[in-house]
Order: sequence, then C-alpha cells, then structure tokens
Amino acid sequence: MKRYLDISWPLCADMVHYKDLSAFYVTQTKNFAEHGMFQSTLCMSSHAGTHIDAPFHVMQDGQRSENLRVIIEAKCKVLDCTNVQKAISADDLRVHNIEAGDIILLKTSNSFLPATGSFEYQFVYLAASGAEYLASKRVKVVGIDYLGLEREQPGHPSHKALLSQGIMIIEGLRLEHAQPDDRYTLLCFPLRIIGLEAAPARAILLFGPCPEEAVSLSEHRPIIQ
Amino acid sequence: MKRYLDISWPLCADMVHYKDLSAFYVTQTKNFAEHGMFQSTLCMSSHAGTHIDAPFHVMQDGQRSENLRVIIEAKCKVLDCTNVQKAISADDLRVHNIEAGDIILLKTSNSFLPATGSFEYQFVYLAASGAEYLASKRVKVVGIDYLGLEREQPGHPSHKALLSQGIMIIEGLRLEHAQPDDRYTLLCFPLRIIGLEAAPARAILLFGPCPEEAVSLSEHRPIIQ
Repeated sequence: MKRYLDISWPLCADMVHYKDLSAFYVTQTKNFAEHGMFQSTLCMSSHAGTHIDAPFHVMQDGQRSENLRVIIEAKCKVLDCTNVQKAISADDLRVHNIEAGDIILLKTSNSFLPATGSFEYQFVYLAASGAEYLASKRVKVVGIDYLGLEREQPGHPSHKALLSQGIMIIEGLRLEHAQPDDRYTLLCFPLRIIGLEAAPARAILLFGPCPEEAVSLSEHRPIIQ
Repeated sequence: MKRYLDISWPLCADMVHYKDLSAFYVTQTKNFAEHGMFQSTLCMSSHAGTHIDAPFHVMQDGQRSENLRVIIEAKCKVLDCTNVQKAISADDLRVHNIEAGDIILLKTSNSFLPATGSFEYQFVYLAASGAEYLASKRVKVVGIDYLGLEREQPGHPSHKALLSQGIMIIEGLRLEHAQPDDRYTLLCFPLRIIGLEAAPARAILLFGPCPEEAVSLSEHRPIIQ
C-alpha cells in the first residue's frame, strides 16, 4: 500500500507566525443564511507556513516566484539534527552522507514545537557555515522545519549561500513524523504566483512508514508503485 | 525526457477575477532600501485562480478544506468540449468514453480566453445534467477551465451533484495546451488550510508533448519514468 506523509504546516488563524507578526487571517464574504453558500478571502504573509523562497527575497536582482518550479525529487534525505542546540554548522553536517543532487531536509528540535501559538525566537537555524557546506556539496534543495532558515545573521548569508547557487529553500516544514533513516520522495508544489519573493506551498513525502499522519494513496491509484 | 504541463492559473494583480470582484492583491511589507530584503503579504479569494472546492462551499454540513487531499492520479482524461456553446450537458458527455475512477478535465473554449483582464460572464459551464451524468459514472475528479463550474443555476446543482458524491471539483485550470487525445497524470496540490470552503492549488499534467509550456523534469530526477 502506498502512503504519504503530509509535511505541510497547517494554515489557520492561530498558527505560529514569524516573530509573532500576524500571518494568516480569513474574511467571510458569503454565508449560508444570506447567500446559500460559503465564500471567503484569505490574507497571508508570503512566508506563512510551508513556502519556497525565491532568490528575490534577499537578492534584488534575483529571480522571482514565477520561476519556482514544482519539486518532484526522489533523492530526499531527512537529516537528524535534533541534537543541535542553536545553529547547524558545517561540522554538524559533515557527519552525514551528502551527495550532489541531494534533497536535504533538516530535522531539528523545531519539529517538536507546536504548529499553533507563540513564535519560538530561539528556533534552531542553519548557520552560514552550514549553508556554505551544503552549497559546496551541490545539493538541489534545502528544507527546514521552522518558519525561517536563519536568524541573527546580518545580511542573510545562509539564504544567499544557497539561493545564489540555484539551490531552492523550503521553510516551514513539519518533520516530526519523518524518519531520518528512511528513503523519501519529496513533492513540493508552490502556488503559481507572479512577481513575488516567495510562494506558499503544499509538501508531502512519499514512501516510509508514518503511522500517525500517513494517508493511503492506494485508493487514489498512485502512479508510483 | 520527462515533461510536464503547468495547468495552473497565474496569480497576479491583473488576473481575471470572478465576476470582476477583486481576488488577488499584494502588499509589500519590507523592501531592499530600508530592510535589505523583500517581503510581502498577499490577499486572495479562496477561489482565485486554480483551486479545489470543498463540499462546505455549497453544503453547510459538508467537509472543509482540511480534508482536501493532494491529487496524484494517472487516469486523467482531457475531454474536448471546445464546440459546446453555453453549457456542457449529459448529451455532450455521452459521446466520450468515461469510466469509473476517471479524472475528467473539461476543456472548453474558456481555455482560449485570456488569464488577465475582464471576467467573461458568458463562460462555458457544466450544466446540472452534465454533473449528474459524471456522478452516475462515478468519476473521481472534475476539473474545468474557468473560475466557476456553473452559472445561472439556482442552488448550485452542479456543485452539489458532484460534491455530495465525494467527487472533487477543481476550478480555474488552464487547458489551452492540453491535448484531449493524450494520456495524462494529474498532480494537484491544494494548500493545507484549516476550516475553509476551498483551497488555492498548483496543478500540473505529466506526459504528453506540450511544446510551448512544457518543462523538462529530467534534470530534476523524476520518479515517474
């Protein structure tokens, strides 16, 4: 039976917001009593929940969101970084087997923080040295399990080390149920938005036993057997 | 070489809005001059561009957006309905080979309307008889190439005929380059939103030669050969 793990951050009014800035709210525009239907408008930060950063986020001449492609990548590795205290450095990554073309998802203690409530300012991030190391390994995608890739680093060096090399950054993943030893395929689909610095996305992992959140794809005739 | 066709509606300020109601706008919240980065907030109708309707859109006790699953479906058929003038009826559908479990995308003359500019009030829609016919065939998904599935039908009978049977509705597809005779796999990923009546989505078709908009997946190590 084919299963997948939803690693997308649930979007709702009480979700965690980056630095507690309001990031997601809904306005009801039609209702059953008056219109016989329900209709809403949503407002969100382009960086709310799971999203892909475009280079334009930190580089003025960088590509924008219309150039973000869908990600369908079989070579996805979830790295166990749950013991890292503050920032993932090059030294923390050297112990892992990382190859050119890899899709690297950084599973940290962030994954055990709640998806709703207050922002955790002391979240574990990717240090500039860690980003430079991943860039030197020529990975394709780097994902992290909180709403930012870095913090307290003037000039956003971790973002720039990756984006300047064409490496995609996914922020806001939920990796609590992703097992570092399993082999996964990542599917991450950003909205097709023109001209922005990021795009909200839905992301899932295929394969691997994930008892709590896994959903059977079998009745959906999966194309990947 | 593996290719895909992006059938998602591009989201931008001048995109076509349902009945010309404002549906997508962006606010810049940080900029390079002051903050050394670009950051934005976006507001959109839950029904802007490509989206999946949840049953709660037209049925007060229907399921909401958190129950919308990602679609990965190999049995996708693009039906040529480009000669239909006003509404797709059961008779228009009887000429096609439709089987239980099919993913049906209705390609109409809507696909040749521009994605930006004014709303076309006379768009081709799915008549109640057509929806009932598709429900009787036990298809899984029905997609259409404009921002609504129906119009001028009090009580939304086309929506209800499908949603009440657990058939998913995708609105706002762009099928100009989709060929009715080709075999496709549909991947449609809605945002993971809690509690709403619809969710914006990114949708692509795998397989099939699509010279203008097709993108090579080969360098992305596609898992579907």
